[in-house]
Amino acid sequence: MFPKRATDQIDVKGTALWRQDNASLLGSIEANGESKLFKRESTRSGKPLAKKWDPDYLSEEATKRKVSLAIIKSSARAASQPGMIIYLKIYSFLDRDAGPDTSYSGMISLGAGAPSSACFPFEEIQVRISNTIDFSEIMKENTTMISMAKFDFEPGVSDYSLDVALNYGQGSGSAQMLRFVTEHTQLIHDPPYSDWACCLTVGSTSAWDSALRIFCEKGDYIILEDYIFSSALETALPLGVKALSIHMDDQGLIPEHLDNVLSSWDEKERKARKPFLLYMVPTGQNPTGATQSLERRKMIYALAQKHSLYIVEDEPYYYIQLPPFGSSDSFSNSKVRNELIPSYLSLDVDGRVLRLDSLSKVLAPGSRMGWVTASEQVIEKFVRLNESSSQHPSGFSQVIVFKLLNHHWGHSGFFGWLEKVQAEYTSRRDTFVQACLEHLPADITSWIPSEAGMFQWIEIQWRSHPLYKSEADHQTVEQAIFASVVEHKVFLTPGSCFWSNADVGEERMFFRATYASASREELKEAVRRFGRALKAQFA
Amino acid sequence: MFPKRATDQIDVKGTALWRQDNASLLGSIEANGESKLFKRESTRSGKPLAKKWDPDYLSEEATKRKVSLAIIKSSARAASQPGMIIYLKIYSFLDRDAGPDTSYSGMISLGAGAPSSACFPFEEIQVRISNTIDFSEIMKENTTMISMAKFDFEPGVSDYSLDVALNYGQGSGSAQMLRFVTEHTQLIHDPPYSDWACCLTVGSTSAWDSALRIFCEKGDYIILEDYIFSSALETALPLGVKALSIHMDDQGLIPEHLDNVLSSWDEKERKARKPFLLYMVPTGQNPTGATQSLERRKMIYALAQKHSLYIVEDEPYYYIQLPPFGSSDSFSNSKVRNELIPSYLSLDVDGRVLRLDSLSKVLAPGSRMGWVTASEQVIEKFVRLNESSSQHPSGFSQVIVFKLLNHHWGHSGFFGWLEKVQAEYTSRRDTFVQACLEHLPADITSWIPSEAGMFQWIEIQWRSHPLYKSEADHQTVEQAIFASVVEHKVFLTPGSCFWSNADVGEERMFFRATYASASREELKEAVRRFGRALKAQFA
Repeated sequence: MFPKRATDQIDVKGTALWRQDNASLLGSIEANGESKLFKRESTRSGKPLAKKWDPDYLSEEATKRKVSLAIIKSSARAASQPGMIIYLKIYSFLDRDAGPDTSYSGMISLGAGAPSSACFPFEEIQVRISNTIDFSEIMKENTTMISMAKFDFEPGVSDYSLDVALNYGQGSGSAQMLRFVTEHTQLIHDPPYSDWACCLTVGSTSAWDSALRIFCEKGDYIILEDYIFSSALETALPLGVKALSIHMDDQGLIPEHLDNVLSSWDEKERKARKPFLLYMVPTGQNPTGATQSLERRKMIYALAQKHSLYIVEDEPYYYIQLPPFGSSDSFSNSKVRNELIPSYLSLDVDGRVLRLDSLSKVLAPGSRMGWVTASEQVIEKFVRLNESSSQHPSGFSQVIVFKLLNHHWGHSGFFGWLEKVQAEYTSRRDTFVQACLEHLPADITSWIPSEAGMFQWIEIQWRSHPLYKSEADHQTVEQAIFASVVEHKVFLTPGSCFWSNADVGEERMFFRATYASASREELKEAVRRFGRALKAQFA
Repeated sequence: MFPKRATDQIDVKGTALWRQDNASLLGSIEANGESKLFKRESTRSGKPLAKKWDPDYLSEEATKRKVSLAIIKSSARAASQPGMIIYLKIYSFLDRDAGPDTSYSGMISLGAGAPSSACFPFEEIQVRISNTIDFSEIMKENTTMISMAKFDFEPGVSDYSLDVALNYGQGSGSAQMLRFVTEHTQLIHDPPYSDWACCLTVGSTSAWDSALRIFCEKGDYIILEDYIFSSALETALPLGVKALSIHMDDQGLIPEHLDNVLSSWDEKERKARKPFLLYMVPTGQNPTGATQSLERRKMIYALAQKHSLYIVEDEPYYYIQLPPFGSSDSFSNSKVRNELIPSYLSLDVDGRVLRLDSLSKVLAPGSRMGWVTASEQVIEKFVRLNESSSQHPSGFSQVIVFKLLNHHWGHSGFFGWLEKVQAEYTSRRDTFVQACLEHLPADITSWIPSEAGMFQWIEIQWRSHPLYKSEADHQTVEQAIFASVVEHKVFLTPGSCFWSNADVGEERMFFRATYASASREELKEAVRRFGRALKAQFA
């Protein structure tokens, strides 16, 4: 499943091999952490620098966000930097990059308004981790207890103690989690430019909201696929941006349509500048399940270069890449299948990609923690915005997930877990698609088995519906089918809920099903009911 | 410390007495939760309704945010609501208030893209809680272990299981935490209008950012105090709003100045509409430590009514109200002192107050969880914005803090903890002020001992400085003093860092010290050093 270069660069304990050459983690509150401290040396030089985006590509809000005074004034910085430099910075709102100065060690800070960690009521946390993945909702026997406590910092043994995790932290997220996701990103994507960086987020929904605030002004068009996860649209539209919808096929966004629309863009007629922000879910797209091939990705990236686009790749389903339906039994198959499809980030020679990564689908949505990767110029804007909004993910989330990923699993153990997730979803997809073959009427339904993600997109030949023959429109027919589906006590989401624009078109009709949450028995029964509902409608 | 009505309405287990009359908590994912389910019956009727703010008071963004399709489509809702209603709502973007309909029980949902909780690797969490507060940074012996697990839901025994907490949740936060903060708000503030509600936040920094997005348009003025926590300003200004600074005295904002400025507001001259958003930290203000008396609050509220203002009261230090310095020994004093100063929320007959509450100063900043209270009209905007950004606080934070507050402590136990926090800060404030009396030169320094919060504001008679006599300006003198302070290896923050506007004025000079984080011995030594630095400068 994973690139050979990734697995080759992990030691037996699952640590990135270059880690010992890099900065150590510190036990202090608000300790500095930036991706560049944790990247492999060879990628910090020798590769080209990212393109610097001129201010036209950044919003007025993002341009105005400067380094936070509250952060500068924090005690950790005060203790390691010459006072006058800090003070001058506070005055001049300059960026912070003064080196540490030990002449001020021994300083007592009455600066930062952070409470003493000693008075947090949380002394120790123990978390029982399952070693196997199991959707059967039965408590597992095969578990391991991991623990974390206040003041238990010990380099290499316990790199993240509760007193640090539960106090205020950096806008980039903790150095601890940032190191892990930076290494992970390097192992999987190895971006082909040098000054890339990561920043933790409170989830990809928030990261998308932040991206819109950083890149867009009211009145701008953003480029979306015809069908889109409705929440992504709902996040965007109230900000005053407009949706430019591009047609899709079974590999997602169609390059030719994108090229045509942009090449013929008329600012006067559209009353908007030419769009430059392109949002896509390239792998296991929600709702269509479409996954872009490498060739498709290269074509779209070339168009991004031609039209000077900035790409947001939102990839919550990236690790849920599945072998073709029916190719063999699921788990052994997942081990032998080809490598993961290269991401846009891994193709990004220019620094024109913002990648959104999520832990929601592979660990737990409740962690409310993900990360973004982009050029340092763009990541700096995320850090600044975090400082003035969410600040950073929950310390409970950060310390628990760090202990799991870094100390318990290591990179190789996390890869192993992701393979288990993949195998589980493969088996569920197979159960679902097999049920479709058995129960759905072949003359009026069709589908391409999903090869990534959590969704199966099912097309309905709606012009075969009796109502259509009596001249009912798309909406009427869709509502009639949906009503019948619900009467049969199963819930699938009508495709029109995912239109990114009213003009996506009524040519075709779809329903979206997820095979992620219902049990295998429920999946089979649900498809049987759906089949009955359709047969009743189209009789 | 707490209002009699609050302690009278808690049973022996620390539960709000009206809880048994209200809705029970459910064990399902994304179970509905709204404050109105958890309020005391008598406050749900008989009191006036909040003023409805016309669209001029809400931003274009807030007005456009409608109920999220993603939420509507979730399986929990699908299972409890008639399919056609959901569907029509999806089409028409209507609000959701269809009642539960059991005719759809037994429905299998393939709708929501939530992963199965069974595959989260987190099986059980145990948290060791300290029963005493102790800033001495020594592990406590006096602790209790609380635990939470997957699928352990049992009404009244374990009302919040890991499978629910770690999956997706509502934009208002979990029903569990929402019930606790709603009851707590009722016990402490008992707002004098009927349709108030709470919503969880990922902290008050984020809540302030959200408030600005909900109420302001670019170009608006917002009303601030002369001195302000710099982060609050940095959050606001990049959004394109401007600061209108109002003078302060030792009780914070001066009503007469506010009245004068607003009464003489000239929209043409100012090129902006009359300001309506008033942001204050009424208790233990950062940086000045000022606490508004009840009389002051009433005067400002009356002005808000006169000028049609909307008040944001940001109250992270509300529970750190301290008895007067030197009045007696700290802990016994905290038990006998007067009740908490009434909040703006408790005076709010109109529904014109948004209160921001935080757990950062009384539990741990790393929880990244707080709550807001306002009229349902305003809270609905917070829920909508959460759905499209942070979604909700971390599930780890929610379940751990809920188990602590609800099951381990109960309301009375939480009150007890808050009294311990208050006693601890009283003792630290006393140590600090005593050191000031001993070590600071009385001829050039003065201070009013703080009676709330974490900060002591110290005035310097800067015109006595030798540089002033040779015609140096405020900035030069402040920098010279600061440099000397840092040379003496202590860090206090210069007052000009907190100016909300360049024209706050150079009349007076202050330094801010926090007594929250350094140890008692460090506090004494720090003040000694500060005194030496000042004496060296003013010699």
